[in-house]
This record gives sequence, structure tokens and C-alpha cells, in this order.
Amino acid sequence: MADWRDNVRRVVPYVAGEQPNWPDMVKLNTNENPYPPAPGAAEVLKNMNTEQMRLYPDPTAGDLVKAIAAYYGVDPEQVFVGVGSDDVIAMAFMTFFNSDKPILFPDISYSFYEVWADCFRIPYRQVPLDADFKLQPADYSAENGGIIFPNPNAPTGIALEPDAVESIVRSNPGSVVIVDEAYVDFGTASALPLLEKYDNLLVVQTFSKSRSMAGMRIGFAIGSRELIACMQDVKYSVNSYTMNRPSILMGKAVMEDEAYFRETCKKIIQTREWAKEELEKLGFTLTDSKTNFLFASHRSVPAKKLFQMLREKHIFVRYFDRPRIDNYLRITIGTKEEMEILLAALRTYLNK
Amino acid sequence: MADWRDNVRRVVPYVAGEQPNWPDMVKLNTNENPYPPAPGAAEVLKNMNTEQMRLYPDPTAGDLVKAIAAYYGVDPEQVFVGVGSDDVIAMAFMTFFNSDKPILFPDISYSFYEVWADCFRIPYRQVPLDADFKLQPADYSAENGGIIFPNPNAPTGIALEPDAVESIVRSNPGSVVIVDEAYVDFGTASALPLLEKYDNLLVVQTFSKSRSMAGMRIGFAIGSRELIACMQDVKYSVNSYTMNRPSILMGKAVMEDEAYFRETCKKIIQTREWAKEELEKLGFTLTDSKTNFLFASHRSVPAKKLFQMLREKHIFVRYFDRPRIDNYLRITIGTKEEMEILLAALRTYLNK
Repeated sequence: MADWRDNVRRVVPYVAGEQPNWPDMVKLNTNENPYPPAPGAAEVLKNMNTEQMRLYPDPTAGDLVKAIAAYYGVDPEQVFVGVGSDDVIAMAFMTFFNSDKPILFPDISYSFYEVWADCFRIPYRQVPLDADFKLQPADYSAENGGIIFPNPNAPTGIALEPDAVESIVRSNPGSVVIVDEAYVDFGTASALPLLEKYDNLLVVQTFSKSRSMAGMRIGFAIGSRELIACMQDVKYSVNSYTMNRPSILMGKAVMEDEAYFRETCKKIIQTREWAKEELEKLGFTLTDSKTNFLFASHRSVPAKKLFQMLREKHIFVRYFDRPRIDNYLRITIGTKEEMEILLAALRTYLNK
Repeated sequence: MADWRDNVRRVVPYVAGEQPNWPDMVKLNTNENPYPPAPGAAEVLKNMNTEQMRLYPDPTAGDLVKAIAAYYGVDPEQVFVGVGSDDVIAMAFMTFFNSDKPILFPDISYSFYEVWADCFRIPYRQVPLDADFKLQPADYSAENGGIIFPNPNAPTGIALEPDAVESIVRSNPGSVVIVDEAYVDFGTASALPLLEKYDNLLVVQTFSKSRSMAGMRIGFAIGSRELIACMQDVKYSVNSYTMNRPSILMGKAVMEDEAYFRETCKKIIQTREWAKEELEKLGFTLTDSKTNFLFASHRSVPAKKLFQMLREKHIFVRYFDRPRIDNYLRITIGTKEEMEILLAALRTYLNK
């Protein structure tokens, strides 16, 4: 007999980092910003007209789009916004990756890429990073149906030079190249200046990390007008109104406060460099992270053991039980106080 | 030479109702609720902890899901939430409609169904409503890869009897049957009681109409645990965190205020029945709408002409330039004062 189960799309879903909720916890596991959003966000919430919630939001999210365009010096027609950069990248996969050839991305990278490819039935090939976890641009000149990589990469934290990024974009006029810049604001040069020369480049960023708004779900992409128009068409074929009223208004307020943004990023970078040195003193080897997290391996104690020890003390970091990286911890940069708690726990355990 | 344009998904996007923004306008074109959300929503916004916005929201939107489950007397595992019912239905299309056989939906219906089918490459067949715009359940026993219809239907406003809904669900064990109940709270029996007997039924509802929260983008689906688990897997393969913090908390507060909800729906139903009588006096023929809008055709003046005349006076109603319904106006039920302004404009124009 016919069974509705026969027509179900079967997928292996992404498993997000756990979201524990203990009053005493030190949460360094999902790369959130330790500082609150710019003060304008609270102001917006306080003054929000709840009566207007009965009305649909602006489907173009115009106020938010204009604030992003103004900040980055591009035209509003070059900006696409979505419900976090996950929504933005999912839309980009649907829009641009419709070839029979495999899309390419690094073997060690944001693990959602393969989940999206599976979900949307897109063939893909994972390109191995070299032994130092470095991406080799030459590997991306093979025939492909599209390219995506994070810069800086996650969970390694390693950034690619602007020339290397450009060489990938230049050698692939037949593909859209997506540079996922979720962590770019912590010390990496953005690919945005390349937009003047290449219409096959899509740069994706997020409010979840450097702009302290993971709770609001705001991501965006910047590209050529033509590229963005293609994405808008698909977006308006899935959901016309993705950004709710608080997202639009809080996002705008946060994007407009450049001073607060710069100051927050600077503090996180300072804490990162200090924490890195402290971890090295404890016997850790670390990559040169340009993100708001560290990627650390201890010379004698297995990462999994450290992960579990910290977890018992309600200090949450991320551990990936995956080939090549199963002896590393990904540690989000918290406040200096939070990092002190982490370091103290490690010192005690390692007898240092 | 290879061109990235060759791999772009080309779609004909949905065109949403315009969102004009005049200070003096009477906005009766996108079926928004004329009353503000329940007072708890404003309370939530005022007390919201902006500091927490730096943290990801609960990916399961647990507080909101539990409030919906409690209200409808189902298990939280039977509830799926999304960014408006458009997001929920798009996810359901992706999850359940993967057959080579066409999915079925009425020829006159929510125009997004064919847009989703096109976007997701799902074959479809539009089943004509009868001459009185009634859906005939027997038409839905043909071979199919899935079924969706709104109850009550839009833009006709006409509701289907519970027996008719059940006969469609019963005769299609090989398909998921989606009943889109966006307007159910304005006087139609929900299909929810059928969930005890059928595991192939998915009931979709929204906060955008009866719960006055179009601006927040909250929709939900209720079905068997197994059906909902399939949707969750796909959702977690596209975007783990769809509901932002304000949505979860405001949605919960609104769902918990049953008295306000009942009172608001009652007022809208009363205004609808009164406005219907008044329009009949002016020479309009109307369907028996069980929604928060009226579907009206004038016996001598073309709908398009009336639409334009009203538009010039900043009274916005909806006109569909589509076969069979191009002589109808869809008029959202506003406050009694707003309906008086509409009626006065029509009386003047029609010399009544």
C-alpha cells in the first residue's frame, strides 16, 4: 500500500553545539560574543511600538539593508539579509549551486556545508587542507559547480591572504565563489574590495559574532547587483518576510554604532592573544587564530579528556570527534574573567 | 566560456501584497489584524534582557513550542515552529513532497503553493474549484505526491466541512495532506481532532492573523510525532536557529492569553458580518467568508475599477488579476471605523 513515508526527504541533520544553561557556567562553546550588543539595541527594544506588530514587516528589510550598505560603502541592491548567515548561505546554495559538477569546500571547515549539500542534493567534494591546516588555492582550480570556504576558516581559525582569495575567485568565472566571513572582524582582510572586479563573488557575514547578536538571527551577503537579484528571486519564492520587526530595527541600530563595534572587537582580539600565550605556557599548541576562538591541542593530554574534565566543571568548550581534528579543542574567547576560570581549571588539572 | 549564470536556479518569485505606508491610509490589503497583540507581548519587550541577545536562542524554541502544545492539548513533539507559516509550509514541501507524481491543490488558492512547487522542482496539478468556488473532495482521490489546501480557502474565504476534510485525509494514506489553517480562528472547525486517527495529516497555523503578530513572523504546524520529526530533521539541515529571542518570548505570551484572543476574533467576526450586509446593500455579491476578509464582486462595476478608485483615496484592498477571480476584491476586515471609511468611499462612488 502507498505510504507517505516513501516520499519523505531523508537527511542527516547538522548537530549544533550544545546550548547548556547553568547559572554558574562558563560558556565558551558556540563562539558567541562575551559583550552585549551596542547600547542602541536596548534603546530600540524599549521604544518599540508593539501595536505595529500586527502589521507585516517590510519584506525588503529596507532600514537594515540600508544601514549595512552604508557601513560597507555598497549599494543597497548589493545586500541580501537573512535569518542568520545560515539562512543566507542556504539560500545561496539553492540559488547558485545547480550544476552536476561537485561544489568544493575544505575537508576541515564549517560542518554545515556538507549538510546543506546533502539536503539540497548538490554533489560535493571536500578538498583536504594541507598538513598545517592551510587552504591551498591551487586545489580550487579543478572543475566545479561552485566554491565555498570560510575566511578565516573554522574551526582552525586560520586566515587566507587576500591574494589567495582573489586567485580562487579569478580562476572560477564559471562558478559563484562564496567567502564565508563569519569571523572576519577579528583581524582578517575582507574580500569585499574584490567586488569591484568580480561579479561571481559572494561575501557572507553575520551579526552573531562580532556584533553580539546571535540571539536575533541576522546574517547578510554582499555581491554584485546581478548575483543578489538572483538570490532575492529565490528568497521571495520561499518566504517573503524573513526578518521580523525587532530584527530590522535592532540590526540597524547595531550596524550604526561603529565605535562600539571596533572597541568590542579590539577587546576580544586582546583577550585572544593573551589567552593564547597562557595556553602555550600550559603545553598547548595553537593555530594562528584570527577569530573569536582558539584552536588548541595539548602535547600530552588528549583533547577529549580535557573537554570532559572542563564540562564537569561547567566550563563548556567545543570538541569535534572528527578525523584530523579529534585532538583539538575549540575555545571561544570570553571575557578575561571567563578565560581566567578556564585557565585555572586547566592549571589545576595539568598540575601547573 | 563557463559562466556562473548557467548554474543559477531561475524562478518566478511570489509577489506579495504591496505594503504601502501612508499616515492616512486604510490598509485592508494583506489580512492583518486591526487590533494590537495581547498586552503580554508589550510586557515581554519591555522586560527583555538585551544583554542575552549576544547568546544564540534556544534552537528548539522550547518555550514557544510548549505554549502552543499546551493550548492545543498536544505533545510538544507534535509541534513545529517557523518564521511565519510560509517558512513552515516551505519546509513541509521540502520534507514531504518528493514524489514524481504531482501534488494537488486548488486552482484558486494561496498563490504561494505553485511558487514553492516551482522553486523546489515539485510537479503539481491545480484542481479546479467548482463554479461556486467550492472544493470537491472527490477530486483529491486521484494519484498524487501530496495535497495542500487552505481551510477556509483564500482568497474565497469559503470553509470546508470537517467530514470533507477527513475524507481527503482518509483516502490518501500514501500522501501527506497539509491543511493550511491560516484563517481557521475566524469561524471554521480545525482539522486538529483528526490527528488522533491519521498520521499523514499536517495542520498549519499562524500568529499573523488571529494573533495579531504578522510583524513577528511566527507560524507553526501540528502533526503526528513521526511527521514532525521528519520536518525537524530537514529544518536542522537548513537553519538550526530560526526563531529569535523576541519571537520565542512574545509568541509564548500571546499564545497564553486565550481571553484576549477569543475577544479579538469575536470582534472581527462581528465586524465582518456587519460589513458583509452593508456591502450587499451596495450591490455586492459576497462569498460566505469564514476568514478575516471578504471576497466581493459588484454586480455592475468592475472590481479593478473599484480597486483603483479606492487606492487613489489611500484605501488599500487586494485585487488579483487572475482567471476566474479578476472581478473580485479581497477586503481585509479592519476596525469598524476603517470599514466605515471604505463603505463611505464606495457609497459616494456608487451614488448610494
